[in-house]
Amino acid sequence: MLIENLFNRLEQKESRIVEIRRHLHEHPELSFQEEETAAFIADFYKEVPIDEIEKDFGGQRGIVVTIKGAKPGKTIAIRADFDALPIKEETGLPYASKNEGVMHACGHDGHTAYMLILAETLAEMKSELSGVIKIIHQPAEEMPPGGALGMISAGVLEGVEAVFGIHVMSMMESGKIFYRSGNTQTGRARFKLRVQGKGGHGSSPHTANDAIVAASSFVMNCQTIVSRRVNPFDAAVVTIGSFDGKGQFNVIKDSVELEGDVRTMSEAARTLVEDEIRRFVKGLEESFGVEARLEYANDYPVLYNDPEITGQVRAALEEANIPEVDAVVETEPQPPSEDFAYYLKEKPGCFFYVGAMPAEGEAFPHHHPKFEINEKSLLISAKAMAAVVVRFCGEEPI
Amino acid sequence: MLIENLFNRLEQKESRIVEIRRHLHEHPELSFQEEETAAFIADFYKEVPIDEIEKDFGGQRGIVVTIKGAKPGKTIAIRADFDALPIKEETGLPYASKNEGVMHACGHDGHTAYMLILAETLAEMKSELSGVIKIIHQPAEEMPPGGALGMISAGVLEGVEAVFGIHVMSMMESGKIFYRSGNTQTGRARFKLRVQGKGGHGSSPHTANDAIVAASSFVMNCQTIVSRRVNPFDAAVVTIGSFDGKGQFNVIKDSVELEGDVRTMSEAARTLVEDEIRRFVKGLEESFGVEARLEYANDYPVLYNDPEITGQVRAALEEANIPEVDAVVETEPQPPSEDFAYYLKEKPGCFFYVGAMPAEGEAFPHHHPKFEINEKSLLISAKAMAAVVVRFCGEEPI
Amino acid sequence: MLIENLFNRLEQKESRIVEIRRHLHEHPELSFQEEETAAFIADFYKEVPIDEIEKDFGGQRGIVVTIKGAKPGKTIAIRADFDALPIKEETGLPYASKNEGVMHACGHDGHTAYMLILAETLAEMKSELSGVIKIIHQPAEEMPPGGALGMISAGVLEGVEAVFGIHVMSMMESGKIFYRSGNTQTGRARFKLRVQGKGGHGSSPHTANDAIVAASSFVMNCQTIVSRRVNPFDAAVVTIGSFDGKGQFNVIKDSVELEGDVRTMSEAARTLVEDEIRRFVKGLEESFGVEARLEYANDYPVLYNDPEITGQVRAALEEANIPEVDAVVETEPQPPSEDFAYYLKEKPGCFFYVGAMPAEGEAFPHHHPKFEINEKSLLISAKAMAAVVVRFCGEEPI
Amino acid sequence: MLIENLFNRLEQKESRIVEIRRHLHEHPELSFQEEETAAFIADFYKEVPIDEIEKDFGGQRGIVVTIKGAKPGKTIAIRADFDALPIKEETGLPYASKNEGVMHACGHDGHTAYMLILAETLAEMKSELSGVIKIIHQPAEEMPPGGALGMISAGVLEGVEAVFGIHVMSMMESGKIFYRSGNTQTGRARFKLRVQGKGGHGSSPHTANDAIVAASSFVMNCQTIVSRRVNPFDAAVVTIGSFDGKGQFNVIKDSVELEGDVRTMSEAARTLVEDEIRRFVKGLEESFGVEARLEYANDYPVLYNDPEITGQVRAALEEANIPEVDAVVETEPQPPSEDFAYYLKEKPGCFFYVGAMPAEGEAFPHHHPKFEINEKSLLISAKAMAAVVVRFCGEEPI
Repeated sequence: MLIENLFNRLEQKESRIVEIRRHLHEHPELSFQEEETAAFIADFYKEVPIDEIEKDFGGQRGIVVTIKGAKPGKTIAIRADFDALPIKEETGLPYASKNEGVMHACGHDGHTAYMLILAETLAEMKSELSGVIKIIHQPAEEMPPGGALGMISAGVLEGVEAVFGIHVMSMMESGKIFYRSGNTQTGRARFKLRVQGKGGHGSSPHTANDAIVAASSFVMNCQTIVSRRVNPFDAAVVTIGSFDGKGQFNVIKDSVELEGDVRTMSEAARTLVEDEIRRFVKGLEESFGVEARLEYANDYPVLYNDPEITGQVRAALEEANIPEVDAVVETEPQPPSEDFAYYLKEKPGCFFYVGAMPAEGEAFPHHHPKFEINEKSLLISAKAMAAVVVRFCGEEPI
Repeated sequence: MLIENLFNRLEQKESRIVEIRRHLHEHPELSFQEEETAAFIADFYKEVPIDEIEKDFGGQRGIVVTIKGAKPGKTIAIRADFDALPIKEETGLPYASKNEGVMHACGHDGHTAYMLILAETLAEMKSELSGVIKIIHQPAEEMPPGGALGMISAGVLEGVEAVFGIHVMSMMESGKIFYRSGNTQTGRARFKLRVQGKGGHGSSPHTANDAIVAASSFVMNCQTIVSRRVNPFDAAVVTIGSFDGKGQFNVIKDSVELEGDVRTMSEAARTLVEDEIRRFVKGLEESFGVEARLEYANDYPVLYNDPEITGQVRAALEEANIPEVDAVVETEPQPPSEDFAYYLKEKPGCFFYVGAMPAEGEAFPHHHPKFEINEKSLLISAKAMAAVVVRFCGEEPI
Repeated sequence: MLIENLFNRLEQKESRIVEIRRHLHEHPELSFQEEETAAFIADFYKEVPIDEIEKDFGGQRGIVVTIKGAKPGKTIAIRADFDALPIKEETGLPYASKNEGVMHACGHDGHTAYMLILAETLAEMKSELSGVIKIIHQPAEEMPPGGALGMISAGVLEGVEAVFGIHVMSMMESGKIFYRSGNTQTGRARFKLRVQGKGGHGSSPHTANDAIVAASSFVMNCQTIVSRRVNPFDAAVVTIGSFDGKGQFNVIKDSVELEGDVRTMSEAARTLVEDEIRRFVKGLEESFGVEARLEYANDYPVLYNDPEITGQVRAALEEANIPEVDAVVETEPQPPSEDFAYYLKEKPGCFFYVGAMPAEGEAFPHHHPKFEINEKSLLISAKAMAAVVVRFCGEEPI
Repeated sequence: MLIENLFNRLEQKESRIVEIRRHLHEHPELSFQEEETAAFIADFYKEVPIDEIEKDFGGQRGIVVTIKGAKPGKTIAIRADFDALPIKEETGLPYASKNEGVMHACGHDGHTAYMLILAETLAEMKSELSGVIKIIHQPAEEMPPGGALGMISAGVLEGVEAVFGIHVMSMMESGKIFYRSGNTQTGRARFKLRVQGKGGHGSSPHTANDAIVAASSFVMNCQTIVSRRVNPFDAAVVTIGSFDGKGQFNVIKDSVELEGDVRTMSEAARTLVEDEIRRFVKGLEESFGVEARLEYANDYPVLYNDPEITGQVRAALEEANIPEVDAVVETEPQPPSEDFAYYLKEKPGCFFYVGAMPAEGEAFPHHHPKFEINEKSLLISAKAMAAVVVRFCGEEPI
């Protein structure tokens, strides 16, 4: 049977997946600067019987590979991201980053590794496959505006009927696959607010206009957005992560710069929070007579998994009976944002999670200097995505 | 000598001052309703050789009495107020209020008593006096807009070159007279702010607009007016005395009414505080999307004692060597507002204080249900004002 | 077939359901005072072949009726509440409340009506039924501590294996039945906070301790509980519905009383919000030197529908093919709290919703003076609960 | 006559005053680092017939010079400070600072210049003088703990009966001398507050403890100290000049550091403000569960001019009829703090002001990079202090 054949081949290549992953882990590159990684990926495909490879896709370092099955079927896209983070690795692993200050602390090395071996295997078996598989190797997931947007506007989703992605998760139990239907990861916005008052001597507030007091009032007022404006059964977060008001103790601060992060779980909340922040900024100017300049930028949208397709993904994963997988379980919504959400705004699909908690020792969260994954999750990812490919590339309507 | 003669006569009439005061104390009347008190005053003058009496002055119950000295001199006005307060007396005095719920808890009974006997005495001695003395018996000092405004607009100060008043003070030491030059009592404004949000079920804030939260933010912001806007060497107070937001615990409050009191010690601060409150009201609407309706009314202005005249008052009081007076001392600014300030906006003058702390027992502040004065302060008041009259009615320029 | 037979009989009695409902609607009684309603219910059962009736259950006006099927099976409980609300009806209906100021504005009249006819029908058919059905007629759902607690402590759930309830919903589409698994209705707490400062004259804040300012700071700080403390994917609401600080504009308020309402969707959030409020109360005392007395009372817990049983309820409702029902659909979490949650803390079960939006005219929310239901929802409720009874009273394990 | 003789000699030396001042202006030195300036001063006295010189006084660079009059009389001290500020001069003057980043932007160069020439002149005329004059050349006025404390603890005021100082004032009209009796310049305290919460991902506030929100609440609460706690007729300022909370927009800030400046015009307010800040810090910990570490240091006390002595200074200045002086006028309280206040806590005395507004061009405030004085103020200062010396060193009791 096709799926068993695929699984067998992948099992035999498990050590290569790990090897590739470790190589990438040693050579991480920052978002929008992934030169060597892109070259490595392109190089990998040289000997692989794929049907097409497009490099430097959309003016970025994205690579799109097409594998055409011999039988008619649908066109789907599967995506792996490959950028790393500006973090100084502290794992002490033998294959730790050699690029000081840069680290694969989010598992994108693993994503790319499993995807390359899966692609190779699919290409080898394309005579048995239906439909068309587009493999999206995407750069720059970690840094807004993100790599997905560029690939989409360059047409990566043209003709695609559904799109899929996997994230390995260091804090989720290994041996399990997790999914969620509907709104699954938060949408995000960021903002900067410059509050311009008027400086003065600490002893003479009446001749000045204290930007610190005005900005503090703004911070307090912003708490009411989540507490009073957002539907309590929806979810939103407004974090002011930076209050840059360092000055001299005895000089009234003339200006302050705030920076904030907004997370929402629905487009309704997303719009509402932005409107409310804009309202409070205007109110701040009126109330305190300061000048308040706001830069507000929405970036990654809410990640929405199509319920119908997610149901099928779950079924496909359960029916595949992957031996390394104990259970396929529904998960809670995930706070982080993810630029895969852009693909899902264009095409239906599903982004799901493979548990990758290390078998021993403490598990560290993503973006932590001691982040590590259980490498067994990589074969699982390859098999899981293989099951999805087989399910969706057939002739039956999705 | 004239002054000694005056003092002798006043001394002999001391018991009559006390008798009148106690009569008035027993029959207090509220501001703008002082019918019997006005009749009592008018009646008193029937047998007194004054030169003129004008009743129902300015459409109110004010009485203006003119006494013309035989010798040429200046025209001055001296004022005593005669209204009482909506307070239930708890002194237990034999001459306590017989008008339940109304009380002379501010000493205006004493003011009127000393003034009547002083007027009688001045009238008796007018052949020896210089100049013209206008005696202003003023109603309604306690209730804005106050009685002074009406008397002024009816012309009570026409031809007057200086104006004087005394307040007996239950918390100031008996046997002393107190004065202050420049800005001496606060100006006052009051405001009402209705904050109209939108009601709703306590469990669903997103469908409502919580007026309590908006109004609380306004209260906090208002603190910055005094802390950051007003010159620290000036004085201002913004008190929100009423936050009327009673409702059901589980219903989001649709509207709230605040009432506030503003005190300032300069016209600059007065204007500034009003501007800032208006600014915060506008900011409240912008910030919280509520409708905020403000009614803001300035009433009594800052009471300003002319420094030159105050210096002369002090000198006159010191030189008069009133035997019952130990010292004439400068006092701190006085927080309460006083509608005598209106006279002082029109004409130079001085409003000063006669210590009236009871000789025994606890001293209670003005407006307290147990307020009482030392009645010895009344003879002192009469003598002190007599000394001022003699000083200022002469021919020398003020 | 049993279910068809039941449905037929219920259909024939539809007009009696409506008649009973209208009778109850005309004669509403407040929580813990439902004397006539209880008598009406007891009277109804006089001619009905039930096996047992217990009145004044648990020292309240609750009535528990037992119907024993001829065949072996499980024991389940089904509940209808029968109290009304202190609301002045404004519907203008011919059968509007005759008890001025009291109104069935939450549909409990309908719950009781359908339940009586269902009970009668089940009793008539008990020779065909399996298991034991306990019918709980519960008073005082609307007023904490609620009627459920008393019935439970008097043993109403002894021997019961599962418990079920229905609420008719005026804002949900008629012809549909709604369910939700897991945490479904919020838990609730309420609190009173007395903030005791020190009064004083509006012009002299330094001699007083302003309770309005302290309480306003508390209100603002409380916003951070939901905005920063509660998991954004959980749900909580902290509403301060009452800020009782009415006073005179020019007197510093000595004390203020706040009342608040807390809603949470998990026990974790419930505990957390209480802890945080207690923390802010203590902080308020430290910060402002006021005395803050808090009364905090948890009442109805989070309503938790057992996922397994809810799945079976959905299946039973779908399989029953009730002709008047278009769809059985999952619903959002419901903000209001409900004392049925107490039964579900003791026994597994499911509380679900029957759409009752009026066919014509505006739909008004529960507790509104113009609240009305579509009476067609009552037959649907009877049939839906009949389907549940048949499903769960059999011999198969739940 | 003595005073005329003194004035004549000073007039003849005016160009030397200016020359010295410009030399010092070119060579400013920071507080506690005034090596060359101290050497310059010491050097100046080499040829001057003084009675004693003490260098490196009190372990600092202070210099104390004693001049003994031939006639008996009282011992007084007169003080000039000589440190400069860490400011980059932008005056463009020919004698601008040659020590980049350091500037005499507060007039201490002028204080020292007039004092040296005055000392020389007094020494020349000591046969005609009464009493003993101690000249205090004080370092480090600008930087807490200030130079005065060290000189006092080293005994500079032993045997001294009164102490005097002058400040030239760039924003006060030239040709006028200004004085004020009682509390004249503010006392000062400074504080640092470290608010330690717990960092976390911007999307997950419930796992963190946001220091920025806690600190903002503290800033808002602190406004109530001045608005509600301090006597409105007293003066106080609480400025939070630094809110160091710079971070990443999407990371919850774990800690924040505030720095603040407190000014008060009475010891009562000084104590009160400190108590209230300590209270709010404790309340912050309780309210937000943060750790708040406060360092609070009082430095310069309120500067209190003895009213009796100040009256005599005024009289002396008026009677001296200094031709370059139009008027001797009372001034408002002065917001800045000044370590001369320490001397006045030990001995009665008076610190007064000589107008030094530039004759042409814009006047810049003290500590401004474009600060400049009218050099005519230096001769006036010398004459004014000479008049004070003559008045107070005589035999009459002060």
